[in-house]
Order: sequence, then structure tokens, then C-alpha cells
Amino acid sequence: MPDLLPKKVRIVEVGPRDGLQNEAQVIAADHKVAFIQKLIQAGHQDIEVSSFVHPKAVPQLADASDVIANLPGFDGGRYSALVPNERGLDRAIDCGIKRIAVFTAASETFCQKNIGMSRADSLSVFEKICKRAKDAGLSVRGYVSTCFVCPYEGEVGEAVVAETTQALLQMGVDEVSVSDTIGAACPNDVDRVLSCVLESSPLDAIALHFHDTYGTALANVCAGLRLGVATFDASSGGLGGCPFAPGATGNLATEDLVYLLDRMGIASGVDLERQAEASRFIAGVLGRPLPSRQLQRLNAACDR
Amino acid sequence: MPDLLPKKVRIVEVGPRDGLQNEAQVIAADHKVAFIQKLIQAGHQDIEVSSFVHPKAVPQLADASDVIANLPGFDGGRYSALVPNERGLDRAIDCGIKRIAVFTAASETFCQKNIGMSRADSLSVFEKICKRAKDAGLSVRGYVSTCFVCPYEGEVGEAVVAETTQALLQMGVDEVSVSDTIGAACPNDVDRVLSCVLESSPLDAIALHFHDTYGTALANVCAGLRLGVATFDASSGGLGGCPFAPGATGNLATEDLVYLLDRMGIASGVDLERQAEASRFIAGVLGRPLPSRQLQRLNAACDR
Repeated sequence: MPDLLPKKVRIVEVGPRDGLQNEAQVIAADHKVAFIQKLIQAGHQDIEVSSFVHPKAVPQLADASDVIANLPGFDGGRYSALVPNERGLDRAIDCGIKRIAVFTAASETFCQKNIGMSRADSLSVFEKICKRAKDAGLSVRGYVSTCFVCPYEGEVGEAVVAETTQALLQMGVDEVSVSDTIGAACPNDVDRVLSCVLESSPLDAIALHFHDTYGTALANVCAGLRLGVATFDASSGGLGGCPFAPGATGNLATEDLVYLLDRMGIASGVDLERQAEASRFIAGVLGRPLPSRQLQRLNAACDR
Repeated sequence: MPDLLPKKVRIVEVGPRDGLQNEAQVIAADHKVAFIQKLIQAGHQDIEVSSFVHPKAVPQLADASDVIANLPGFDGGRYSALVPNERGLDRAIDCGIKRIAVFTAASETFCQKNIGMSRADSLSVFEKICKRAKDAGLSVRGYVSTCFVCPYEGEVGEAVVAETTQALLQMGVDEVSVSDTIGAACPNDVDRVLSCVLESSPLDAIALHFHDTYGTALANVCAGLRLGVATFDASSGGLGGCPFAPGATGNLATEDLVYLLDRMGIASGVDLERQAEASRFIAGVLGRPLPSRQLQRLNAACDR
């Protein structure tokens, strides 16, 4: 492996938000808090805990304020929440959360269907949110969905991903998560899109967000690592489906990522066994097995 | 991706052998033949159809002669079978099969437990088999199990993998499949082991055989592709468990591999949709869903 490989990786655990928002069931707030507590015990320093989108749009996360108010050792530091608009920002600031995330898409159709705005409009909205958030001392993450393939438009060009990333960073967003929403990307796509993004944006402002719908998530992580990317999103146990492929597997599983990093000698600060305990807990609450390969393997070993 | 990336990859479909031998159920010979027929329709040119190990050791494949006698358009060309000893070779030659495979291991303990011989003894046995097979005009493949991690001994050194590979090629074996039996390898392991193997063995005699137990199979395929490897084993739908991690997922799924290759512009000659049909057929016979991510996705899309 080449020299660019980072020695240390930051994992952004998105299970409580991106995972649970795609589950059919609505989970009680105290279960969410207990889940997040176990994630903290596993060593996570960066957890996306909920979302301030309208409760009608995502009823699974309608209890955001409640969850945040009851988080263990809450000083706002290691927790983040999604913010779609200024009303959401008000709620986030009221909760005392210190990190927010905004979300747009590289594909115009996806952006319209997902957040009801054009890409350009979303960027104007975020510019205002970003300014207010910064004034309030918050850090801001930006998600760019459908950076590789769009479920409506098909192939997405790398130029629009680079442009959107740059626009977000220029308005003061601290980090952009380049996301493969439907999990269709392969390592050659990661090379192509990232190389273009890195022409106009700095490496240390880039995170990668993969889904394992096509089984390529860890291969894509390796492509990112080779380019020097050191921040990856993951979801406990692979929690969360893909709304565009019902029944298919969802986010890159945190266990799978931690195993890969451990074995490649790259530190993440997350303990694999404790991470698996957090995933087992939420799998029990949901009453279904989670798709992580690693979790299945660890569970099989436990059953013997 | 670097220049070494091959333009064309040969897939060795091992589902009917490595897949079915690890299933708890014994499948009827006519179902196996129908399965292999569907694999041919998907475009496979290289299918490991059965094994001539003792029927008591692997009752799942006790019907090897029966299956081979009923294969569609059988001229021996595209089919292979496992041969553990001279008695197995006799049976293989009687059937008219033109490709056989022998199997040893890089780990001494695994070799002893898996085939009841030391590594050195297995190589002596194979030398005789190889000579007789070559005299009979057969081609010979060699599997080297546990090339990365052994379930009994732990880490396996790359030198013993290189030595064993070289020994097999020197006795006339045409191709060696470097195998990650328990699926624990990561791309850095593939780099390390392959680099050592390629110091003493030619690239075009090397195949890679991965399991997806830890979710790393496609990442490992990419590491192999980058080193120029152009032959990969795969099993329909991820058929086959891992006897050392009951309940865990098994072989690299053919669908997952074909999707990756298609998207990377690497020809394999295998049609993804038809491959999925073959997998659905055998999943129906087994009465259980298969773990392939891609198959789950395609099935979910069909259900809509």
C-alpha cells in the first residue's frame, strides 16, 4: 500500500441518525440513549445522534431534543445532528448541540426529491445556516448525496461533486462527506471522483460515506485510504436500509470498518468487541439481525 | 488504478463444489446438474463441479460421477473436480473430466486436520497424481488453503505460501489458487503475500480465492487486480459456509465479483442477471437465502 495511507482514521458513527431514520420502526428515546451510551463505551468520539428535520418527514427521529437532553456526559462535544433549515438550527442551538450537519446532493433530481429544493437553493439556505451556526460557535458538516450514481439520473459526473464540495467549504462548512447514497460505487469511481474533488478542496476536509448495498463498501474505503482520506462514516451493524432498494443491505457497518482498520494497523480508537455489543443491543431492540459480516461472524462465534 | 489492472478476468465458479460441500443438506444430483446448466447459460467457462474425496468424508458430493455423467454438452473442457489421492484420480479419469484440482495448505495444522497429511506428504502424493494426470492429458490446479490466517495457528507467514506455490508449479501444476480459507485477510495481507509469491512464481499461474466472512473479499480482489492477478474464484450467491465460523457468510459471491468487474470495465464473460438466476435456483433448492449483497439487492428490486 502506498505512503498516503493514514496512520489514524476518524470514524463518524451515523447509526443513531442515518441508520435509525431508515428503519421502519420508531424506537423509544431511552433505547436510543442507551445505544449511544454503548457507542461511547466502544470509544466513539463522533456520533451523529439525531436529526432536526420536520417530525412528519422523519417520525423515527421526532424525539431529537429528548434524546440529546439525555445523552451521557453531554457537553455537546462529540455529538452532531442533522439540520435541514433555520427552524432546525434554532432547535439544535436550543439543545446545546455543538456540531450540525447540512445535506444536499450532487444529482439535481435526487436533491429535489430528497429535500424539496434545487441544489442551488439548498446551497443558499445552507449559507445562511452556516453563518448563523458559525456565529454561535458550532462546527458544520456537509453531506453531498449521490456523488457516484443517482437512483433517478444514473451516472453522476465528478465535476458537479467537486463544485458542490468546494461551494460548501467556501461558505464555511468544516468537512464534506462525499456520499454514495445507493452504494453502487466501485474503487475506480472513488479514484475518479476523489481525484477531481481534491483538485479544488483540501484532503483533510473530506470524509467518505459508503453503503454496502453492492458489497463494495470496504473496497471503496481502501480506495479512499490510498488517496489519504482519513475520515469515514459508518453505521453500527450496517444499521439502516436503502430506501431505493428495499430489503437490500444499508450503510457500511462500523464493525466491518473497524476490523479492516485494525488489521491494516490504522488506529480508530473504536474497540471491535464493544462496538459489536452496541450493535447487538440495537439489533435486539429492533428485533432483527443486522447485516454486518463481522457482526454475524462474532455472533456465530458466541453461539458455539 | 494502476496499469497492471487486467482488461479481462477469468472467474472460476466453485459453487457446485466448494459451495455445496459446506452446506448441511445433501442436494440431489439432478438439481446440481440443473444448477450447472444455469451457470453455463450465465457464461461460465470454468466450473468446479464436484469432488472425488471419499463419499464418507463429504457425503454432499458423493454423487460426483453421476453429476459429471449428466453435465450439459459435456466434453470435459470447462469442468473440473477435486482429487485428493490416486483413487480419486482413477475416478476422475473414468468420468472423462479434463481438469482436476489438488489441495494442500500453508499451515501445517490445518493441512493435517483437513486432509490428514503433513504438507510435505501432501506434496509427495500430489507429485504422483500430477504426473499421471499430465500423462493422461489433464490440466491440474492446486489449492493452497490458509495462506493468510489459520484457524488453529493464527498468522501464516508469506514465505511458506511462496514455497508451497512454487513446489506445486514445479511438479507441473498449471495454476495455484492462493486461498483465504477463513476470510480474514485484508488488502495489506494480499499485497504482502502476493508480492512474496510473485518473486518465485509467474503472475499468470496465480489465482486468488477469497471468502467474505469478514466483509473484505471485494477489497482483497481489488488488491489482487492491482497486482495484475486475472483469475479469481467465486461461488454463486456466496454459497457455502465457513466450517470454522458456523452461521457466518462464506465464499466471495459470484454476483458481487461480476458487478465489481463490470463496473470497473473488466470483462469476465459472465452475465450478472443470468448469474443471479442460477443463484436463485440453488437458493430455492436449499430453501435459504444466500448472502450475496448483489443478489439481495437484485431480489429486492424484483420484489417491488
